[in-house]
Amino acid sequence: MFGVTILGNNSALPAYDRHPTAQVISIQDQSILIDCGEATQIQMSRYKVKRSKINHIFISHLHGDHYFGLIGLITSMDLLGRTTDLHLFSPPGLKEIIDMQLAVANASIPYPLHFHTIIEAGTLVETPKFKVSCFPTQHRIPCYGFTISENKAPRKINKEKVIAAEVPFSYYDELKKGYDYETKTGEVITNARVTDPASPNKKYVYTADTVFDLGLVEHAMDANLLYHEATYLQDQTQKAAERFHATTIQAATIAKEAKVNRLLIGHFSSKYESIESHVMEARTVFANTDIAHEGVTFLVQ
Amino acid sequence: MFGVTILGNNSALPAYDRHPTAQVISIQDQSILIDCGEATQIQMSRYKVKRSKINHIFISHLHGDHYFGLIGLITSMDLLGRTTDLHLFSPPGLKEIIDMQLAVANASIPYPLHFHTIIEAGTLVETPKFKVSCFPTQHRIPCYGFTISENKAPRKINKEKVIAAEVPFSYYDELKKGYDYETKTGEVITNARVTDPASPNKKYVYTADTVFDLGLVEHAMDANLLYHEATYLQDQTQKAAERFHATTIQAATIAKEAKVNRLLIGHFSSKYESIESHVMEARTVFANTDIAHEGVTFLVQ
Repeated sequence: MFGVTILGNNSALPAYDRHPTAQVISIQDQSILIDCGEATQIQMSRYKVKRSKINHIFISHLHGDHYFGLIGLITSMDLLGRTTDLHLFSPPGLKEIIDMQLAVANASIPYPLHFHTIIEAGTLVETPKFKVSCFPTQHRIPCYGFTISENKAPRKINKEKVIAAEVPFSYYDELKKGYDYETKTGEVITNARVTDPASPNKKYVYTADTVFDLGLVEHAMDANLLYHEATYLQDQTQKAAERFHATTIQAATIAKEAKVNRLLIGHFSSKYESIESHVMEARTVFANTDIAHEGVTFLVQ
Repeated sequence: MFGVTILGNNSALPAYDRHPTAQVISIQDQSILIDCGEATQIQMSRYKVKRSKINHIFISHLHGDHYFGLIGLITSMDLLGRTTDLHLFSPPGLKEIIDMQLAVANASIPYPLHFHTIIEAGTLVETPKFKVSCFPTQHRIPCYGFTISENKAPRKINKEKVIAAEVPFSYYDELKKGYDYETKTGEVITNARVTDPASPNKKYVYTADTVFDLGLVEHAMDANLLYHEATYLQDQTQKAAERFHATTIQAATIAKEAKVNRLLIGHFSSKYESIESHVMEARTVFANTDIAHEGVTFLVQ
């Protein structure tokens, strides 16, 4: 399971039961939270997202609609009895805010809370199960997009070939890792002879808040799933540029140029009661586009 | 109209679709916000509370479940085009947090935002329409309760007597304010002769978070409506005391001793899925008790 559950798809002003940005990435038994707008923890309750599975939180930038829900979430985790490590990644400034909020409440977080400051592109986390890296986007304040990929899938055992070569079953795990097998007589059965290549790693790319920027294409290239903001419809292209946001057509253009499998659009302006026009416009450029509907889990496949 | 609309009735951990503390007081055409837990602005949308009518916000204390929604609300007021003054009252520390959150976003609030620090009991605001004063409560950090009263209602014109005395209609407003009337011939029609006494000022008392404290009785005395927290049922009296919170029976005892008209209880622990037992317990001591149900407006009468 590698999926993205949308908790909020609106821009700064909550409207029409749309909430500020938050997404939960599920990779196998791990959850990753990307951005944490106000009421994210309430959305988690609504959509049955288990807070206890979240060990990594990535905040793209410190505009309120992307992090105002964080302090409530981390204090609630304490009330829920959390004891395990939590890692927070964000551009500079987050720790100072959280520390001040804890200080006025005469409170502290008893579980291990680690702040990691993002100051440049690169790998943020690599575990046996997934890898998260970041890249800067062009916005009004320092802002980063994220690439989440499953860690390299194992090579696949070719049943017929492995039986023919008489490799013992107990060695299959080694074969999956890419090792060759040496028989008792010293013959080397090369890995490639008895296994098939692993499936390519699945990749989800989240481009956060951004102005239209073809520089994002390289980061989104060949993503299985791309999230790109589409705050405005095409007729607001000028306003989008002024506010360092993007339009439907621009989001779809990035998806098309990057040859992704599927595009999700979100971060809708509260000026739009209906967002059906957004998806219709985007599909004129990139057909496999969907609205990042709240409560829906999109598979990365 | 003098009413209290409940936006949140839960304690720190949002649960069972109950939200952290927030209440909107409507007095004539003005609105006052008391406390502002996370997602208060979303609750406002849900229950059609107009943000533009709020000119005064009172934060009882700086535990997160009473103010984490404030930064989102005041930034949204900006996005909604607010230009009028907003007054915030809280114990020390709030301004520093808000300022830091604005600074990292490279943002400012363009409408006049006034921070008022509460450091002792006394009158906070008095307008022609209402008066708000505060008193300290016993909690883990500095915390204040609030008394909101309608400003003194005008004297009532006695129609029969005013006509008999031949006071001209154009002078009725002066009579309501308490002035006497002098006829053209120099005769003084005393105010008391042609008017009836004003109704007593209606009073709402909000005791915030507090341990059981009979010292609150004097502040709640004769209130038309009293809100008192009842975080726990009676069997958790010991835990309530340890955490500086109160039980159902304790809330009802304060209401009874203060001879209030009606009691609202709230700030329920998230350990309780149902809160029906709370109201049943409280009513054994004070019959006119109700749960501060979210979305309900309770009249102060």
